[in-house]
Amino acid sequence: MDRAAAPPAPVIAVDAMGGDHAPREIVKGAVCAVREHGLRVVLVGRLPQLSSLLQEEDAAAAIPIAHAEDTLAMHEGALASWRRPRSSVAVACRLIRRGDAAALVSAGSTGGVVTTSTVRLRTQPGVLRAALAVILPTRPRPTILLDAGANADAKPEMLVQFAHLGAAYAQTAHGVTEPRVGMLTIGSEPGKGNRLARKTAELLSATADGPPPLDFRGNVEGHDLLNGEVDVVVTDGFTGNVALKSVEGAVRFAFDAVNDALTSSRLAKIGALLQRRALRGLRARFDSESYGGAVLLGLNGTVVIAHGASRAHGIERACLLAHELAGGHIVDQVRRRISANSRSPGWLHRLGQNED
Amino acid sequence: MDRAAAPPAPVIAVDAMGGDHAPREIVKGAVCAVREHGLRVVLVGRLPQLSSLLQEEDAAAAIPIAHAEDTLAMHEGALASWRRPRSSVAVACRLIRRGDAAALVSAGSTGGVVTTSTVRLRTQPGVLRAALAVILPTRPRPTILLDAGANADAKPEMLVQFAHLGAAYAQTAHGVTEPRVGMLTIGSEPGKGNRLARKTAELLSATADGPPPLDFRGNVEGHDLLNGEVDVVVTDGFTGNVALKSVEGAVRFAFDAVNDALTSSRLAKIGALLQRRALRGLRARFDSESYGGAVLLGLNGTVVIAHGASRAHGIERACLLAHELAGGHIVDQVRRRISANSRSPGWLHRLGQNED
Repeated sequence: MDRAAAPPAPVIAVDAMGGDHAPREIVKGAVCAVREHGLRVVLVGRLPQLSSLLQEEDAAAAIPIAHAEDTLAMHEGALASWRRPRSSVAVACRLIRRGDAAALVSAGSTGGVVTTSTVRLRTQPGVLRAALAVILPTRPRPTILLDAGANADAKPEMLVQFAHLGAAYAQTAHGVTEPRVGMLTIGSEPGKGNRLARKTAELLSATADGPPPLDFRGNVEGHDLLNGEVDVVVTDGFTGNVALKSVEGAVRFAFDAVNDALTSSRLAKIGALLQRRALRGLRARFDSESYGGAVLLGLNGTVVIAHGASRAHGIERACLLAHELAGGHIVDQVRRRISANSRSPGWLHRLGQNED
Repeated sequence: MDRAAAPPAPVIAVDAMGGDHAPREIVKGAVCAVREHGLRVVLVGRLPQLSSLLQEEDAAAAIPIAHAEDTLAMHEGALASWRRPRSSVAVACRLIRRGDAAALVSAGSTGGVVTTSTVRLRTQPGVLRAALAVILPTRPRPTILLDAGANADAKPEMLVQFAHLGAAYAQTAHGVTEPRVGMLTIGSEPGKGNRLARKTAELLSATADGPPPLDFRGNVEGHDLLNGEVDVVVTDGFTGNVALKSVEGAVRFAFDAVNDALTSSRLAKIGALLQRRALRGLRARFDSESYGGAVLLGLNGTVVIAHGASRAHGIERACLLAHELAGGHIVDQVRRRISANSRSPGWLHRLGQNED
C-alpha cells in the first residue's frame, strides 16, 4: 500500500483569544498538540501577539496563524455573532466553511461560541437544532449527556435527533459499536415524566428499529447519570444543564466535605498527609474528565468548546477530541443517521400528526 | 400563668405499614418519638400485629392504635387511592379530616402517599397544587427544594405559590424570619431559562413586594443548590426531581471514588484507618439529613414522607418534623400567604392576562 494514499489529518482551527488564560495557555496547548501528537493546527487571533508567543515556544514555523482582529467578550449575549463578524470564532468558522479547516476549538464563553458557530456554520441538512454534548466521568466508558444547554425549550422530534447525534459521538470518539441510549426523566417505568419526556420516549420506542437502529434502553433518572449504564443520555437543554451543574456542584461539595472531615482531628490530619497523593489524583481526574470539552453536534463542522479556565493541557485535550471527531467524519455519520431517520416510518407518522 | 392553658401538642398519625422495615422499625420509631420527645402519636395499621409489637416495646398503654386492614403496595400507581379506601394512609387521612390528628407520617412509596393524601385531604382553599418539598444538607441552614416531583408539568402561577409554600416551611421548621427564595434555572442573569422559568421569574419579581412580601433573590443554577445562598429553591416537579436525584447520585459517586482512592495504596490505607471515624460521621450526616423526610405542602393537614428505607431513627426524625410543622400551624400560615397573594395586584394582573 502506498502510504501517501492515506487522507491528510484534519486541520483544527484553534481560537487563541477565548478563555481565562488566552492567549498564552492556548498557544502552549496548540504547540503541544502539534509536537506531541502530530496534529494539524491553525491558530486564529491577533497576528502580532500570537506570532511573538509562537516564537517564545520556538514554534513559529510549525503552526500557521489566521489573523482575527476582534474577540468575543466572555459574557456576550446571543447577538454577539452579528456584532462581531471579525471575531476569532467567526474567522475560524470561515476557515471551516471554505474547507481550510475541519474543526474549531475554543475556550471562549459557551453562549458566544454556540451562537456564533450555529449562525456561521449552520445546522446540517435535516438537523432541527444543534445540541451541546458533555462527557460524564463514568467508568469504564464515559457517558455522553446532551443537550447540556443549547436549547432551553425543545420538542420531542429534536430529542430524537439528539439521540442520534449522541450515538454518532459515542461511535466516533469512544469506539462504541452500538451505543446504549437512555432518556432522562423521573421514574423508571415507561410513561413517567413530563409531557416532553413522555412523547419523546414514545417516539424513540417507535423508531428504535430504524433506519437507523438505535439501542434505546428507556428511562434513566438523575441518580443513574454517573452509573455508566448507558452511553448516551438524552434530554432537553434546560433539564440537561440543571442536571450537569447539579452533578458538578454536588461532587465539589462532597470533596470539600471530605476535606473538612479529614482535617478535623489530629489523627485524621496525619491520615490525610498519607493520602494526599491519592486524593489529589482523584480530584485531577474529575476536573480533567468533566471539563475535557463540550461538543456542539449537528453543525457543518466539528465544534469543541473547552472549559473557560482551561490551561495548555485542557486545550491539548480539546484538540485531540476535535481531531478524533473530525478524523472520524462525525459530520458524515450524523448526515447518514439523520437522513435515514427522517425517512423512518414511525418518524413520518409522527411528523404527520404534528402538522394537523 | 396556668400551664393547662397551653394548647395540647398536635397528634401525629403514623402509618405503621409503609416502608421497607414496616411495621417493626416504624413502631420502634414511634415509641422513641413518644418516650424521648413527649410527642403525641397514633399508630395506623393492622391492630393485632401492632398491638403485639407495642407490647414487645412495653408501650401498649402509651400509644393508641387506629386499625386499618389494608396497605398501599410500594409501587402502586395513581389510582391506588381509589382502590384502597381502607389502606393505612387513607385511614390516617380520615383521622386528620375528622380533627383527631393534625399530621401524617409515612415511609410508604412517595407516589402512593402523594396521590392518596392529595385525594383524601384535598388542597387548601386557593392552592392550585400541592408541592413536595425536600431538604438539601447545606450549612449553616438547610435549603428547601420544591417541587421535588409531585407536578411534572407545572405552570408559572403554581411555581409562585410554591415559593410561598416553601417560605412558610422555612419559617415554621427552620425559624427563618425572611426566607430568601431563588428560582432554579440555567444562567444567572434575568431572562435566562426556558419559557416556564422566564415567566415564573417575571411573576415572582412583580409580586415580591407583596402582599405577602417575598425576598426573591432571582435565578439560582444547579451548582448553587448546595451552597446555601438561599433558603428556598423553587422549580417544577420534573426539574426538581432530576436535580435532587442528580445531587444524590453525584454525592454517592464522589464518596465511593474517595473510598477507592483511600484504599489504593498501603500508605493511603493506613491513613484511611486513622480517618475512618471522621468519614463515617460525614456519611451519616449526609444520609440522615438528605433523607430526613419530604413534606407535601398545600394540603389540609401536614404530610411528612420518610424515606422508604427508614429505620426507627428516621421515623423518629420524621415525627419530630411533623410535630414542628403542625405545632407551628403551617396550614394556617400557608392559608394566610396564599389568600394574600391571590389578592396581590401583580398576580391579578397576571391571571387576567391568562384568561384572555
